[in-house]
Amino acid sequence: MRVDARPSDPELRDRVLGVLKQRFGDRLSLSAAIRERHGKDESYHQAVAPDGVFFPESTAEVAEAVAVCAEHRFPVVPFGVGTSLEGHVAALRGGLCIDLSAMDQVLAVNAEDLDVTVQPGVTRKQLNEYLRDTGLFFPIDPGANATIGGMTATRASGTNAVRYGTMRENVLSLEVVMPDGRVVRTGRRARKSSAGYDLTRLLVGSEGTLGVITEITLKVYGIPEAISSAVCQFPDLDSAVSTTILTTQSGIPVARMELLDATQMGACVSYSKLEGYEVRPTLFFEFHGTEASVVEQAESVQAIAEEFGGSAFRWTTRAEDRNRLWQARHDAYYAALALRPGSQGWTTDVCVPVSRLAECIARTREDLEGTGLIAPLVGHVGDGNFHLVYLVDPENQDELDQAQAHSDRMVERAIGMGGTCTGEHGVGYGKMKFLEAEHGAALSLMVAVKRAFDPDNIMNPGKIVQA
Amino acid sequence: MRVDARPSDPELRDRVLGVLKQRFGDRLSLSAAIRERHGKDESYHQAVAPDGVFFPESTAEVAEAVAVCAEHRFPVVPFGVGTSLEGHVAALRGGLCIDLSAMDQVLAVNAEDLDVTVQPGVTRKQLNEYLRDTGLFFPIDPGANATIGGMTATRASGTNAVRYGTMRENVLSLEVVMPDGRVVRTGRRARKSSAGYDLTRLLVGSEGTLGVITEITLKVYGIPEAISSAVCQFPDLDSAVSTTILTTQSGIPVARMELLDATQMGACVSYSKLEGYEVRPTLFFEFHGTEASVVEQAESVQAIAEEFGGSAFRWTTRAEDRNRLWQARHDAYYAALALRPGSQGWTTDVCVPVSRLAECIARTREDLEGTGLIAPLVGHVGDGNFHLVYLVDPENQDELDQAQAHSDRMVERAIGMGGTCTGEHGVGYGKMKFLEAEHGAALSLMVAVKRAFDPDNIMNPGKIVQA
Repeated sequence: MRVDARPSDPELRDRVLGVLKQRFGDRLSLSAAIRERHGKDESYHQAVAPDGVFFPESTAEVAEAVAVCAEHRFPVVPFGVGTSLEGHVAALRGGLCIDLSAMDQVLAVNAEDLDVTVQPGVTRKQLNEYLRDTGLFFPIDPGANATIGGMTATRASGTNAVRYGTMRENVLSLEVVMPDGRVVRTGRRARKSSAGYDLTRLLVGSEGTLGVITEITLKVYGIPEAISSAVCQFPDLDSAVSTTILTTQSGIPVARMELLDATQMGACVSYSKLEGYEVRPTLFFEFHGTEASVVEQAESVQAIAEEFGGSAFRWTTRAEDRNRLWQARHDAYYAALALRPGSQGWTTDVCVPVSRLAECIARTREDLEGTGLIAPLVGHVGDGNFHLVYLVDPENQDELDQAQAHSDRMVERAIGMGGTCTGEHGVGYGKMKFLEAEHGAALSLMVAVKRAFDPDNIMNPGKIVQA
Repeated sequence: MRVDARPSDPELRDRVLGVLKQRFGDRLSLSAAIRERHGKDESYHQAVAPDGVFFPESTAEVAEAVAVCAEHRFPVVPFGVGTSLEGHVAALRGGLCIDLSAMDQVLAVNAEDLDVTVQPGVTRKQLNEYLRDTGLFFPIDPGANATIGGMTATRASGTNAVRYGTMRENVLSLEVVMPDGRVVRTGRRARKSSAGYDLTRLLVGSEGTLGVITEITLKVYGIPEAISSAVCQFPDLDSAVSTTILTTQSGIPVARMELLDATQMGACVSYSKLEGYEVRPTLFFEFHGTEASVVEQAESVQAIAEEFGGSAFRWTTRAEDRNRLWQARHDAYYAALALRPGSQGWTTDVCVPVSRLAECIARTREDLEGTGLIAPLVGHVGDGNFHLVYLVDPENQDELDQAQAHSDRMVERAIGMGGTCTGEHGVGYGKMKFLEAEHGAALSLMVAVKRAFDPDNIMNPGKIVQA
């Protein structure tokens, strides 16, 4: 998607960068290569480089830099590792990128309270490495090895949100540098509170448009005593979705429940050389609990799946077998790309009430006919969230236009079914045009929030709402 | 607590009420008895009657009434059934009370999606009656038979938040009449979304200060196949709290985990004629799951409790035995009152990280010495939330002053330990004085939100923040 980017005023830019350079020296980079890398995410949205990239080492430094920018009304774009997918980090009005990757310390682990406090540059894999010896883990897994700051800013989730929730449910408290350079703390380590407006949830998912997140307190969980995994194939999509609905209604606390459609499963069978599996809609399950309960959970789901014609139900508690089963799911993206050598993946992200999921996917598939697009599908099916991946030739504008048009129709369909234009990737600038259809009059309240927090519109301008 | 209440301007009042009377006839009540009942909650906070009480029958009527009030900058105070505890419904600046009890319809039950949509006047017991035949239930249980609208507005929780979360986690979407009379809808029925600022969470817990909630979409759950209950007694508070910490760390999905301190347990032993129990700190548990898993959960907790010296661990899956065990917990408040015949209960509400809970309770107990106050304690111990109930003579000002001072110290202590001045009751006007200590600079962001949504400060003025 191309966008109307407007550079900052050169005189203003030179003045602000001059002040910052004097203060921070080499930790302000003006190199073209570094700037370009920081204006780009992992999507096909147009990249726009910032005017400079600052690598702070403390909250105080972030606050100082933001205060300088605020004084000059110079844009600020926070940056984690750049794995976002909707153009979040493109510097549409120029400005200063604040790269938080050097703020990567785990500050506190409170095992008794099942919480941790981290700096925003800590990645989720780094956090889980750090936690391993404590018997704790942080479950949210969006696929990419994103930073906790970035995951908080986009309200990320992933494969085990069905059991553990999203960043919305797992952030307890934040430290944030506000657009005027003040440092505030929202929320407390107490598990619950009714003490006023929920500023923490307001900042989770705000994509750098309301402030720079400099510290995050997260819920963590005890590593389960046992884990079991299962794979099951279905005659059609309806049966697979019905199985997930009944599994959820039955209160089975499934940790992951992932759908691959026939196209994606075909890709995985080839790519991962899966033997004994057919090219059909397939569910991958993971269960967490005690030794006895993970067996019971798998058996209960097997009984449900069989009601709906599920076959080839295979489950295991052995770690090596589990890893083999799930490896195919983890490699799904590469398997998809292998369907069309030389292509690149363009990932969509809608979420609907699960009762509409089978219909939404079926109509999305029908709509693919005639477009010539190849597009396997994976779904976090317990949440009604699915991703179609268009395999496109990035040099073929007609194909890109087809993908964009199909993606737009898919979003409109999802919104029409009570769903959302983005289940977990966020708005950036790529999804802004859908917010009016999704939120109606409530969109004006988002604008009101933005103006109240950031009256000069310096924080990641041009994202989420036009202020 | 007494408060500086200022009546509305008589001329303005007569003009606005005249317009509303003409439009709504008998559904606007000006009767002194009805007005007085609507200015009062279940606490000891000073009641302040509104100028009139309106009983709308639809969202459109709420919108119409709010628009009239907005035009004249006349205060609006939403009202459910008046079970709040911090002076939420006191009409501190006069104005129109909107009693939503006639909007009491369950509008939709989506069994496949595990959600329901209700009007705000539906009470939680009414909702569960309605759901019974569907095999679904709504778990949040704050004790009182509050309305869903009121529970949403105060971010209520209660005994099973440890498993099912609070209203924060269980509201999917809201319809709200804004302070200018516009009707907006926040959120969607999709289980998750990253589409912009989380307005739903901003309105949950806003206590009528940002708008009038007119429709709520809630998560519901399948009624568990089996339920087991257990009671266990401990040599001291530390052992009881350590048991709950290890239970949570072990990932045992306990549905309720309630602490009674020795004073409260003594009251229950007498009142409920419990045989074979001692006057000691006691935990009540409830487990939800399959037949096998509720047995396993109870046995696992028993093993943990025994490590910490827990004795008299008794558990059962039989409904009649469960009801008998839990009846004593449900009657705890009456048992407490019976400790001092003729007294009335004054309930406090703090929440701390669970690692600080034993210390916080111990210091709170020490602080009682010398005050002469009798104050049993119950705690939602998995969340770190506890309630001390002062048994006071409402005619004895010295006693009331002692209770207020002790309560204030308890709040300051909780905040000092990383906790909150209110775990689940809300701010109203009773807890406003603590928000600065709890939130620091973030309090100014709450003021900014209030001003952005309600620039004329007509929505429940004088609550949460001074705008």
